[in-house]
Amino acid sequence: MPVAEAAVILTPVLDWLDLFGVALFALSGALIAARERQTFVTMSFFALVTGVGGGTVRDILIDAPVFWVKHPWYAALCITMAAIVWNTPTRWWQGRLFDYADGIGLAAYSVLGAAKAMSYGLPPVPAAIMGIITGIVGGIIRDVIAGRPSILMKPELYVTAAALSASMCSFGMWLLPDRWGIDWALWAVAALAGLALRSAAIRYNLGLPA
Amino acid sequence: MPVAEAAVILTPVLDWLDLFGVALFALSGALIAARERQTFVTMSFFALVTGVGGGTVRDILIDAPVFWVKHPWYAALCITMAAIVWNTPTRWWQGRLFDYADGIGLAAYSVLGAAKAMSYGLPPVPAAIMGIITGIVGGIIRDVIAGRPSILMKPELYVTAAALSASMCSFGMWLLPDRWGIDWALWAVAALAGLALRSAAIRYNLGLPA
Amino acid sequence: MPVAEAAVILTPVLDWLDLFGVALFALSGALIAARERQTFVTMSFFALVTGVGGGTVRDILIDAPVFWVKHPWYAALCITMAAIVWNTPTRWWQGRLFDYADGIGLAAYSVLGAAKAMSYGLPPVPAAIMGIITGIVGGIIRDVIAGRPSILMKPELYVTAAALSASMCSFGMWLLPDRWGIDWALWAVAALAGLALRSAAIRYNLGLPA
Repeated sequence: MPVAEAAVILTPVLDWLDLFGVALFALSGALIAARERQTFVTMSFFALVTGVGGGTVRDILIDAPVFWVKHPWYAALCITMAAIVWNTPTRWWQGRLFDYADGIGLAAYSVLGAAKAMSYGLPPVPAAIMGIITGIVGGIIRDVIAGRPSILMKPELYVTAAALSASMCSFGMWLLPDRWGIDWALWAVAALAGLALRSAAIRYNLGLPA
Repeated sequence: MPVAEAAVILTPVLDWLDLFGVALFALSGALIAARERQTFVTMSFFALVTGVGGGTVRDILIDAPVFWVKHPWYAALCITMAAIVWNTPTRWWQGRLFDYADGIGLAAYSVLGAAKAMSYGLPPVPAAIMGIITGIVGGIIRDVIAGRPSILMKPELYVTAAALSASMCSFGMWLLPDRWGIDWALWAVAALAGLALRSAAIRYNLGLPA
Repeated sequence: MPVAEAAVILTPVLDWLDLFGVALFALSGALIAARERQTFVTMSFFALVTGVGGGTVRDILIDAPVFWVKHPWYAALCITMAAIVWNTPTRWWQGRLFDYADGIGLAAYSVLGAAKAMSYGLPPVPAAIMGIITGIVGGIIRDVIAGRPSILMKPELYVTAAALSASMCSFGMWLLPDRWGIDWALWAVAALAGLALRSAAIRYNLGLPA
């Protein structure tokens, strides 16, 4: 897919998916800080790092302009999510509901990252890796700075769900490069597959063999 | 402010502020390594990472050439700071005096980072974040690699002081875009405000509520 | 050395050295994950991060296209190394033999990184630092994500061996800029010097004074 067409066709959807993913991940970053009884400034920093971290690393690697740097609303959205967490009881945000919301963000972000990488002309394997990076790196940076064991080191099907969505998206777009109508269906299927796997892992405590 | 004018007007001052901030942060990195009884090579690496880390992340994010890569004296300055720490007793560098020096570097670097980001055409909120990143990210990388709890996780008014200086600078430059004579005063006021807050925090052990 | 000539002369060798270094470091990343009884997905992620991490940071800093992003075989190679580790007993890979193999990768990668940086027009001190970064940063990221103490914090002659190879390469290329026949010999001597130092450190448990 040439970049120019991609810019026209993909940009509005990608932008909304970006905002949605950023908001969900910013929420999870602010919550980590809230659970460790941090101040509002630290909470905002964690919201920002977790919200935009994965997409930032992807954009730097594929040599795209970093998506939030020239647009004021991404950073403002992250600080807003921190303010919401700051002004509500932490227990509102605990439990399974939050895990499922995080799973939606993970699946949406992995597809988004892979699709953006494909639109920059990457081969499918690196493009799938860009999707995984978009989905999980924000959380890894959050955990490393907070000194927590990373989700990477747990056997839960978390990275695997991101890998499923990202691979389906990138290999699908590679096999079906010119059917624009199918792209939409492909993205939806890829995101739903990853979400289904992640939901099953949450529901039944599934893990990979080590 | 157009980039071309900014390059002519800002560059000499920014360069000197850069060298000053780099030297102070390199010193703090070398000291961390010295306290953990590390070798000279490790000390140099910590001096470099802490000295140029924040500005490096800023330059990558705003898509500027990384400031120290094509100029030989930044890296040499960091290694020189490591050599100074290596050849002097650690106790020379302990205590409040060092905390105040670090506060000066923090305030100067936050203003510098925000001003550079504004000169690259960023909106004020991302520009303020670039200022904060310039001020604190070198120290965060230092702490993460050394396995120490990061300054971010403490309630001290450290990130907040950086946020104050960076926000005053970026919003000031946004409100007063064309009064060149005022820019200088603005930078000085923004740096002094952050330094005053940081000094009060050191003097009276102030912290934010968690 | 102008970039155009460098591209013609250096590229084939650099590419092979890249693949060799990537494979060795990917192996060491997969082994860390295997020793902590991780899943295959985590193992692949560690193989990738360790295999391409140092060269990725180098390419971002010198503003080169990140070497593995548009070429499918680097990422595939890392995943293959993870698959090899996954299907063999961990004890095959323990002991001194692996330490020496890692030393070969370290020396080769440090020379490669410094040579690439020189070919992008960097001064010799930053170019030597790029060589060190290429050699050690993949391992640092691996250790930080795994929550292990980094090799940087140990007195072993590891970073020092990388620094020796990288400095000999960058200062040698700076002093002898136009003798193409000598470049090859220089790279070999620089790599062998670092390897000899690292081997002596492994053999006799040498360390720097702290």
